[in-house]
Amino acid sequence: MGGTDQGRATRRSPATPNDTDGKENGGGVTRNLPSDAVINLDHGDPTMYEPFWRKLGDKCTIVIKGYEHLSYFSSNKNPCWFLEPKLEDSIRSLHGAVGNAETDGYTIVVGTGSSQLLQSVLYAVSPPDQPNPMNVVSAAPYYSCYPETADIVRSGVYKWAGDAHGFDKDGPYIEFVTSPNNPNGVIRGPVVNRDGGIVVHDLAYYWPQYTPITSSLDFDIMLFTASKCTGHAGSRIGWALVKDKDIAKRMVNFMTVTSIGVSKESQLRVAKILQVVADGCKRFGSPDGDNLFEFGRNMMAKRWEILRETVKKTQMFTLPKYPLQHCNYFGDLTQAHPGFAWIKCNDGMEDCEEVFKGSKILVRSGRRFGSDPGYARVSMMSKDDEFNGFIDRLSSMI
Amino acid sequence: MGGTDQGRATRRSPATPNDTDGKENGGGVTRNLPSDAVINLDHGDPTMYEPFWRKLGDKCTIVIKGYEHLSYFSSNKNPCWFLEPKLEDSIRSLHGAVGNAETDGYTIVVGTGSSQLLQSVLYAVSPPDQPNPMNVVSAAPYYSCYPETADIVRSGVYKWAGDAHGFDKDGPYIEFVTSPNNPNGVIRGPVVNRDGGIVVHDLAYYWPQYTPITSSLDFDIMLFTASKCTGHAGSRIGWALVKDKDIAKRMVNFMTVTSIGVSKESQLRVAKILQVVADGCKRFGSPDGDNLFEFGRNMMAKRWEILRETVKKTQMFTLPKYPLQHCNYFGDLTQAHPGFAWIKCNDGMEDCEEVFKGSKILVRSGRRFGSDPGYARVSMMSKDDEFNGFIDRLSSMI
Repeated sequence: MGGTDQGRATRRSPATPNDTDGKENGGGVTRNLPSDAVINLDHGDPTMYEPFWRKLGDKCTIVIKGYEHLSYFSSNKNPCWFLEPKLEDSIRSLHGAVGNAETDGYTIVVGTGSSQLLQSVLYAVSPPDQPNPMNVVSAAPYYSCYPETADIVRSGVYKWAGDAHGFDKDGPYIEFVTSPNNPNGVIRGPVVNRDGGIVVHDLAYYWPQYTPITSSLDFDIMLFTASKCTGHAGSRIGWALVKDKDIAKRMVNFMTVTSIGVSKESQLRVAKILQVVADGCKRFGSPDGDNLFEFGRNMMAKRWEILRETVKKTQMFTLPKYPLQHCNYFGDLTQAHPGFAWIKCNDGMEDCEEVFKGSKILVRSGRRFGSDPGYARVSMMSKDDEFNGFIDRLSSMI
Repeated sequence: MGGTDQGRATRRSPATPNDTDGKENGGGVTRNLPSDAVINLDHGDPTMYEPFWRKLGDKCTIVIKGYEHLSYFSSNKNPCWFLEPKLEDSIRSLHGAVGNAETDGYTIVVGTGSSQLLQSVLYAVSPPDQPNPMNVVSAAPYYSCYPETADIVRSGVYKWAGDAHGFDKDGPYIEFVTSPNNPNGVIRGPVVNRDGGIVVHDLAYYWPQYTPITSSLDFDIMLFTASKCTGHAGSRIGWALVKDKDIAKRMVNFMTVTSIGVSKESQLRVAKILQVVADGCKRFGSPDGDNLFEFGRNMMAKRWEILRETVKKTQMFTLPKYPLQHCNYFGDLTQAHPGFAWIKCNDGMEDCEEVFKGSKILVRSGRRFGSDPGYARVSMMSKDDEFNGFIDRLSSMI
């Protein structure tokens, strides 16, 4: 969920499927984007991976015939009865290849994006018969969609209780830990640390293109999503790695009642894609160039470099700094290149969102993340022409 | 939702993808099904259409490349921003060809099955700031999943209030009208009929293979699902036809928060399938045999005939009778052949579910539908070998 982000009120400006031509960002060159077009970097639509997938050609093409996959059921052995066995295999294979999370002994629960998983976790860990709802917290700046995810139907079982830093209520609680954090890319741990707390680790961005992989995580409940790992946001596939079998069962029950499972077509496509990523990511510097994480880190590193240079020139903004850390996956010292830039407007500019709006750039106000309107979150995962347009306009703010 | 039915506690016995060989049910011949196998007719997995789709060969095959449909967004014009334009076209085309529902002037909202749509309707029509939750009712016997759909997270905005027949509370309410009804196949209208009531028409089975199409419906909120229309339950695609634009917008908001849209792959596949159905259903008695509704009605009629004969012999059970009505689609007098048989156990057998369990047939107790345990619901939409096994065991009960 820290990763599954979108724009409801606004939408990206029209773009044809061909407006990213396979070249990496050359820096500052705006193509196909009128100078008065609105650039929507409010949501986190991860379209930047398109050139990579084009390059792979038919390697990830799926073909499904009319008579295939009619049934609701995928497996009669798995507690997650709607999980396609091939998707389960690919997920385990990918985490093994990257080394970012343990999967042995975990039950895998698939969801319609990690949004649905997040709700299913809230349901699964909250006792159904308690008099008062469980408090749900996350440390500010927190992912902007957590509050409405928890409160949309005013559940009597759980409710949003705000910033984890100021949380002082008694009793059990649920803490979302987004790491790396959306919006600010920081590696995080829980902050409440009290008995009776249930910690849910939202790891949408714990992949090598965004952050150094420093260990293979083994938390009780870990959420991932294809959207931010491979860029296939339209497929709506997320997965949870869950240690406690009873919690996994209750999550499955939630999915059963609320959507009777998850699209078979999406599961099968993502299964194929994750397997190609898992296979390709063992090759480094290959002339084939089929390592998604190399492609992604190179692109993100270049974009961050350009952004940092531009911000330095304008002297209007401040960007977070990230420590150099050893990445077990790449085997080198590297720093984070988060999917979002968490930008602080310098003195005198109180509403950072408005500052960008003046240049027809839509970003998300710090206010939405339980933080200061002097901050804004800007997507770094757009197509080249949108990123380049953003940099051009930023430069002209000087 | 009346249609999107499944088995959580139990699952169908293992069956290979090839265990339906393309022949229609010949009556009473059990193939590939061990005599001691559990036959699960508790859920409504509509696998009976597989032979039809096999016959069509590659006509409905979809091919999706790795770089296609990455984005969350499908359209920047439609209020339902995640609805694939091709799916919208196919839905309008199919309703036009069948004549079962109006679509002009309606907003189409796509959901992950009609389960998700049903929840989104509850959210969309309930005022968010009222002190007490809206009452949700449906006339018994009602679809067994309505109560848990309404109550799963103990919403403060809406809550299940039981059988519409006995509903006497003041204030606004929501009434689900399932027509034809799940479990009993009866055509229904609302029963409360008071000011301030919002009626949601769940029309999962209002297709010509199940019931005579007597008019093109134009209710305010109508729900359909691919699962029961074409048998593609695994795709999890439902759609709502909604007259009020504000209600449609609130439904879209619910989908956005709870799953950030709906699988693109499933939408594109179902778009293709519905278009093939819409085209084929204009041909009657064609040697190609590409009219799904002809295939479906023939199969259902044959199964109902066999069931009625068998039940008559046993003298242990009673089946509902359906009136002959003119079907505008087929242009003939016909009776309903519902997707479920609503079976009453005759005198002396108080628990109908248990009676079937004695023969290793899993069915759903009338109790689950707010009705009498002397009734049980049995799926008529299984594969041939399961249906035939059911008939064999029923015969041997004499």
